[in-house]
Amino acid sequence: MNEYIEQAYKEAEQAFKEKETPIGAVLVKDGQVIASAHNLSLKDIDPTEHAEMLVLKKGFQILKTKNLSSCSIYITLEPCLMCLGALINSHIKDIYFGALDEKKGAFTHYQVSPSVDNISIHYLEDKKCGEIVTAFFQSIRKK
Amino acid sequence: MNEYIEQAYKEAEQAFKEKETPIGAVLVKDGQVIASAHNLSLKDIDPTEHAEMLVLKKGFQILKTKNLSSCSIYITLEPCLMCLGALINSHIKDIYFGALDEKKGAFTHYQVSPSVDNISIHYLEDKKCGEIVTAFFQSIRKK
Repeated sequence: MNEYIEQAYKEAEQAFKEKETPIGAVLVKDGQVIASAHNLSLKDIDPTEHAEMLVLKKGFQILKTKNLSSCSIYITLEPCLMCLGALINSHIKDIYFGALDEKKGAFTHYQVSPSVDNISIHYLEDKKCGEIVTAFFQSIRKK
Repeated sequence: MNEYIEQAYKEAEQAFKEKETPIGAVLVKDGQVIASAHNLSLKDIDPTEHAEMLVLKKGFQILKTKNLSSCSIYITLEPCLMCLGALINSHIKDIYFGALDEKKGAFTHYQVSPSVDNISIHYLEDKKCGEIVTAFFQSIRKK
């Protein structure tokens, strides 16, 4: 497993414990993790509080810039349209993600190609990252 | 001019005065404006702080729900990919906007069709809404 996806996965596990959709993200610059986050949409009653949005906001604050072209993001799940848009707006260099999201994924579902925006997209195919989301929604349905 | 776009335009004018990208948005429920906002990306060094994102966040707080399917949004400019994604995630009913954004617009540039998400899109074609953005960037370039 990719070491940064592993750290993003730990955020997803933490989210699961908090009864939050288990998706995690880490922001990496020069090989160092500078921020990490997980979804807070349910707790905060705010569907914009995805892991990617929160880790980006931390990145802007820490680096004091709107331009994250020196950074890469590692996400457990394929970004939704909102998160891909935020990543484009931040000029991020690379997007790595562990599992596809057929229902809401920007690439898989909306078929957006961000190649025009000079972002490299990397699908790392990590089963655990998808399985934890499936397990979460199954646990909700059982209740 | 549409009365809600007029209110969004006042937000854009306020943004211009604050040396912020002049884009405004209002959230409407049952014919009443429940929140309004303008861009704060430059002031807050945060490219996620678009008018639409900020007015949505106000809406979630005011209505205490993640589901804004009873609301419509009026924006001076066509939403970017991030803002369209956030509007989809919030289940908003209608999107009205005053001017096209050929460089970053979700429909015009990225050619995303949100019809699958049951959102109605309305382009109201209001010249002032585009002209204020052009004037803003011209004023920046002059400096």
